[in-house]
Amino acid sequence: MARVTFTFEDGSKVEVFANAGDNLLEIARGANVAIDAPCSGNASCGKCRVQLIGGEMESKKTLHISDEEYAAGWRLACTSIITEADVEVLVPDIAAAYKSRMKVADLSSKEEIAIFENAKRDIQFASIVLQNSLDVVEVEMDPPSLDDTMPDVERLTRALKRYININMVRVPYVVLRKLPDILRDNNFRVKCVLRTTSRDMYVYDIFGQDEKVVIGGIAIDIGTTTVSAVLINMENGDILAKGSAGNGQIRYGADVINRIIESRKPGGVKKLQDAIIKETLNPIIREMCKSAHLPRNQVYRVCVASNTTMNHLFAGINADPLRMEPYIPAFFKTNSLFASDLGLEVNKDAHIIVAPNIGSYVGGDITAGTLVSMIWNRPEYSLFIDLGTNGELVFGNSDFMMSCACSAGPAFEGGDISCGMRATDGAIEACTIDKETMEPTYTVVGDPGTKPIGLCGSGIIDVISELYMTGIINPKGKFVREGKRVRHDKYGMGSYVIAFEEDAGSVKDVEITEVDIDNFIRAKGAIFSAIRTMLNSLDFDVSMIDDVYVAGGIGSGINMQNAVNIGMFPDIPMEKFHYIGNSSLTGAYLMLLSTPAEKKTYELAQNMTYLELSTVPTYMDEFVGACFLPHTDTTMFPSVMKRK
Amino acid sequence: MARVTFTFEDGSKVEVFANAGDNLLEIARGANVAIDAPCSGNASCGKCRVQLIGGEMESKKTLHISDEEYAAGWRLACTSIITEADVEVLVPDIAAAYKSRMKVADLSSKEEIAIFENAKRDIQFASIVLQNSLDVVEVEMDPPSLDDTMPDVERLTRALKRYININMVRVPYVVLRKLPDILRDNNFRVKCVLRTTSRDMYVYDIFGQDEKVVIGGIAIDIGTTTVSAVLINMENGDILAKGSAGNGQIRYGADVINRIIESRKPGGVKKLQDAIIKETLNPIIREMCKSAHLPRNQVYRVCVASNTTMNHLFAGINADPLRMEPYIPAFFKTNSLFASDLGLEVNKDAHIIVAPNIGSYVGGDITAGTLVSMIWNRPEYSLFIDLGTNGELVFGNSDFMMSCACSAGPAFEGGDISCGMRATDGAIEACTIDKETMEPTYTVVGDPGTKPIGLCGSGIIDVISELYMTGIINPKGKFVREGKRVRHDKYGMGSYVIAFEEDAGSVKDVEITEVDIDNFIRAKGAIFSAIRTMLNSLDFDVSMIDDVYVAGGIGSGINMQNAVNIGMFPDIPMEKFHYIGNSSLTGAYLMLLSTPAEKKTYELAQNMTYLELSTVPTYMDEFVGACFLPHTDTTMFPSVMKRK
Repeated sequence: MARVTFTFEDGSKVEVFANAGDNLLEIARGANVAIDAPCSGNASCGKCRVQLIGGEMESKKTLHISDEEYAAGWRLACTSIITEADVEVLVPDIAAAYKSRMKVADLSSKEEIAIFENAKRDIQFASIVLQNSLDVVEVEMDPPSLDDTMPDVERLTRALKRYININMVRVPYVVLRKLPDILRDNNFRVKCVLRTTSRDMYVYDIFGQDEKVVIGGIAIDIGTTTVSAVLINMENGDILAKGSAGNGQIRYGADVINRIIESRKPGGVKKLQDAIIKETLNPIIREMCKSAHLPRNQVYRVCVASNTTMNHLFAGINADPLRMEPYIPAFFKTNSLFASDLGLEVNKDAHIIVAPNIGSYVGGDITAGTLVSMIWNRPEYSLFIDLGTNGELVFGNSDFMMSCACSAGPAFEGGDISCGMRATDGAIEACTIDKETMEPTYTVVGDPGTKPIGLCGSGIIDVISELYMTGIINPKGKFVREGKRVRHDKYGMGSYVIAFEEDAGSVKDVEITEVDIDNFIRAKGAIFSAIRTMLNSLDFDVSMIDDVYVAGGIGSGINMQNAVNIGMFPDIPMEKFHYIGNSSLTGAYLMLLSTPAEKKTYELAQNMTYLELSTVPTYMDEFVGACFLPHTDTTMFPSVMKRK
Repeated sequence: MARVTFTFEDGSKVEVFANAGDNLLEIARGANVAIDAPCSGNASCGKCRVQLIGGEMESKKTLHISDEEYAAGWRLACTSIITEADVEVLVPDIAAAYKSRMKVADLSSKEEIAIFENAKRDIQFASIVLQNSLDVVEVEMDPPSLDDTMPDVERLTRALKRYININMVRVPYVVLRKLPDILRDNNFRVKCVLRTTSRDMYVYDIFGQDEKVVIGGIAIDIGTTTVSAVLINMENGDILAKGSAGNGQIRYGADVINRIIESRKPGGVKKLQDAIIKETLNPIIREMCKSAHLPRNQVYRVCVASNTTMNHLFAGINADPLRMEPYIPAFFKTNSLFASDLGLEVNKDAHIIVAPNIGSYVGGDITAGTLVSMIWNRPEYSLFIDLGTNGELVFGNSDFMMSCACSAGPAFEGGDISCGMRATDGAIEACTIDKETMEPTYTVVGDPGTKPIGLCGSGIIDVISELYMTGIINPKGKFVREGKRVRHDKYGMGSYVIAFEEDAGSVKDVEITEVDIDNFIRAKGAIFSAIRTMLNSLDFDVSMIDDVYVAGGIGSGINMQNAVNIGMFPDIPMEKFHYIGNSSLTGAYLMLLSTPAEKKTYELAQNMTYLELSTVPTYMDEFVGACFLPHTDTTMFPSVMKRK
C-alpha cells in the first residue's frame, strides 16, 4: 500500500491509499478527484497532465510530454502506475477545470431571467397556455359529528369534488397517513397540493391551512459536459434559484461514446447514474432549494432535457444499443418515471418528465430546444443549431422540420484542445489580436482580475478567426508569420501563446497549437458541412435561410462574425444570427411549466424527420471542403474575403 | 446493568442486559420475548406470570399471586423491577402461549382447501366471475433493424397493443430499466406480467420467454389475536401455501383499545405497524413464498381483511379517532396503497387491497366475511356472526342487511380467562364432563399426546356448558356441587380443574374459575343480547332466522349445541347453524382473485346499515338478562330446559 496525495493549486489536498500497480487516473476517479480525461484514459488526448512533486511512480513517456516537461515532473495520469512508494502529484487547474464547480444563485442576472421571460412570452404568442395540472387549494370541511360520521378520506374526497368536478380522487399513502392528525390539528381546514387531469385527481400532499405552500418544479439540462437547472414556482413560472455544475460523469470520458463504453464495465451503469444523480444533480437540488427556502419535498415535478445517451444514463438504462447498429434507444418518450425510482431528492412521487428523443443521436435537448426556437411557428425558414459536444441542427418552418446530428467532438466546450476548458472561471471567452503587433487582448470569465487558465469555445473561435484574419495562420491552420508569441517545437509544430505562464492563472502557458487548430477546424467543418448537406437534401441554399438560432454551452460571448470568418456558419447577414442561450434548459422550463407545451414537444418530436448524414454520399466531400479556413471554395464566403 | 435471562419450558433462553429500575414486562417486549399481557401491563389481568428461578428482582405482590405461589417464586412481570442483581425467570408456556408460532404449510388439508373451493363455487353461482386484471402474456417483436429503428419501449408498446386493444400502456421504471438487455438476450421474445383495466395497461414486469412466471397473490386476515394468510396463483385461484401466526402486536395489549392507547405513545404507531408488518406478516410471506418456490417479487397483489383498528395500524395510520367520539375512521375504502408504502415484502408495486370498513367497530373482516356468507344472495333471512375479539353480527337477506358490533372482549380467543389461550398446540378445544363422576374428557390441539396447557374458545364453551348441564355450576356460574376437581380458595372463589398439573403440559393446573366463567358469561351475553336487540329493532324474532353462519377464530371445533346451552346463540334447530371458518380470510381470498367480487364487497359495505347498539335503550336490559346460563328468561331456551 502506498499513500497517494493529490495536491491542487489552491493548496488543498486529497490523500488515499493504493496498491502497487494501480493506475493513477483510476485512483483519482475512485477518490472523486476530477482530472480531465476526455479520451477516457488511453493516452491520446494528453489532458490528464499532473506534476510529480514528491515520492515516485512509474510513468510511460508520451508524445504529449516534452523532455523538459518530463524533467520538470510532468506526467500523464493515465500512463502512471503506483509503486510501493508514496507519491504526491500536483493537479493543475487546467486538468481540474472540469471539476464540478457548482454555482447556485437565488436570483439570476436580469439577462438570464429575460431568457425565460421571453420564452414564456413567445410560447403564449403561439397560443400555448402556461397551464400545468398542479394546484394548491384550500379545503374546508365540516368537522365530523355523531350525525356525520364520514371517514377522513371520504370527507376530504367529498370536499375536493366540490371544488373540481372529477370522478376519481386518489389519496396516496403519504397523505392518508397524515390525514387524521392534520385534519384535527387544523379543525378540518387544510391546503392540498393536487394534480388534476381529465381522468382523475391525485392529492400530492396536505398541509395545515396556515402553512406556506409553494409548488416547486425543477427544469434540468443535462449536458455531456455541463449541467444547468432552475427551480421554479409552478404557479407563475418565477425562477426561484439557478444552479449549474460540471457533469460528474466527465471523469468517465468526455463524450457519450466513451461513457457508454465505461458503462458496459461491471456496475458501470450504476456508477454513471450515481455520477449524474447523486454527485451532480442532488447537490444542485439541495443548494437551490436551500437558497430558495423551499423544502425539497415541495418539488412536485421535474423536467429533464438532454441528449439520448445522457437521459439513458440518467435513468440508469443500458445505453449500449445507442452506439451499435441499428442504434436503438430504449425509449423516445417515457411517461412513468418518478423521483423515487431514480433517487432524485425531491418529493418522492414527483413525476419526471423527459424531453423526447427522436433518435440515438438527436435527443431531448434538441426537441426541447426546437420548442424554444419557435421555428415551428413561423413561415420563415429557420436553422436551429445546438453546439454541444455533438452538434445538432434542425431546419424548417411551420410546415416541416428536418434534424440531423454531426459529431463535432468536444471542441466547442474546450475538449480536444490542449488549453481548452468549459466556460467557467479562468476561461478566455473573447479575444482580438492586433494585426501589427500580433499582441492579443482578451476577456476572462470570472471576477475582474481573474487570470486566464484556458480557452472556452467562444474564445477558441475568436483566437482562430483572429489568427486567420491577421494572416498569422493560413487557410490550412498552419503558422506562417513569426513573432515572440509564435513558437515551433522540435517536430516543427507551431503554436501561439495567448498568455505566458507569468500572466496565466495556471502553471503553464495558455497557448493554441496547430493540432488544436486542426481539431477545431474539423469540428467547425462538421457543422458547416452538416448545414450544407441538410440544405442540399432539401434543395435549399444558404441564401434561403431567414434566421439562424444558435444555442448551446459555447457561451453567450460567441462572436457570430468570427464564426463566419472561420467558415463555421454560412456567410449570410449578421442580423440573421441570434444566440438563444441554453435552449435545452429553457425548453425543459417550458415543458415543466406548461402541459400544452409538453404535449407540443412530443408533437414536434413525432413530426420531425431525421437525416442520417452518414447515408448521404456527398457529406464526406462537403466535410473535406469545409476543413479549411473558411473553406476550399472561398466564393461561399464573399464577405470574409472582402474584409480580409 | 444487570443480566436478565428469560428461560422457556423447552429449555431455550433469551439473555439481555437491563438497567436497575427497568420493568420486566417492558424488557421482555424490547427483547421480543412474548409474554401474554392482555391488560397491557397494569396488573389487572394476572396473565404475565413468570417464576423467579435465579437472582433477584423487586416485585409487588398482587391478588393474582397466592402466598404459596409467591413463595414458589411466582411473580407478575408487569409489577417486577430489575435491581442491580442478575436475574433469571421462567416464562411458562401459558404466558408465552401468544408467542408468534408461525405455521406454514405448502399444501393445506383437504378440509381447508374445500373452504376456498366452496367459496369460489358459491360466488360464481351468484354470477360473479373469477376475473382479475392480472395476466401473463407472451410477446414477440420483430428485432430492430436500420429500416425499423423504433425504440424498445415503443416497440414493446406496439406489440402489446396488438394483443389487447388499449390506448395507454404504462411501462414503469422497473421494466424500462431491464428492457434493453432482456429484449436482446431473448431475441425480442418475452413474457410480460400485465394489469389491464378499461383505461390503461400497466406492465408489472418482464421476463425472458423461457422463464417460468407465476402471478402470485396473497390474501391476509389480520385478526387482533391471530393472523392467517394464503398465497395463491392468481390465474386459477389455487392455494400455493398457507401460513398463520400470532399477531405480533399482542404484546402491546390484547384488544384494540389497549393497542390504540399504546400507539399514542411517542413512536407508537410505527412500533405497532412494525409489529404487524415486519414481525408478523413479512416472516409469513417469506416462508409461504419459500415453501411454494415463488420469488416474492412475483406477488403482484395483496388483499387484507381486518377490523378497522387493525387496518389502520397495518397502514401506520393514527387510530385514535376510532375510539373517541364521534368515532371516525381515516378511511372506509382506500385505493392507493402499494407494497412499497408499507414495506411489505412482495413486488414493490403490488397493489394492496383493503376490505372496506363500514364504521369504527365494523371493519373489513366483516364486509369480507359477509361476502363469503352469501347472505346477500338469498331470499332467506340469515344471521352472520363473526366471533372475534369483538363480536360482529350481520342480519338480512338479498333485500337488506344490518350490522352491529358488540364488545365481547377477548374471551372467545382465550383472553380474560385465567387458563385461556388461542387455538394452538396445547389448547383444549373440546370437552365433556361425566354427570356422575364429574370427570372430564377432552381433546387437545396438536399432535397426538400433546398435553393440555390451556383452554381455547370452543373448549371454554364446552366446559361451561358441561358444568352447567351437569349441575356443577348454577345459572349464575357459581359452583354448587363438590368433588375432587372442584376447589374453593380462601376468598371462597370456586374453580374446576380440567387437568391437574401432573397431567398438564405446563407448570400449573388447567382450571376454570368463577371469575373466568363470569367473564365468559358477559362475553356470550353481549353476543346474545346483540342478536336480540338487532332483531327487535327490525321487528324480527329468533324464530324467523333461517340460517346462522358462524365464523371466526374460535375454532372449527365449536359445538353449536353447547353454545345454545349456555345461551350464547338462540335456541333454534341445530341444522340452521353452519360454521364457515375464517370468513375474513376466505373473503380476502375472493376479493383478491376476482375484481367483480372486490367490487361486490364495496357495494355490500355501502348498502349495509349499521346499528349502534349503545344508542338502543333496551340493549342494556337485554344484556343483563343474558348474563345468566342460559338466560333469566328460560322460556327462550325450551330445548335446553328440556334436556337438562
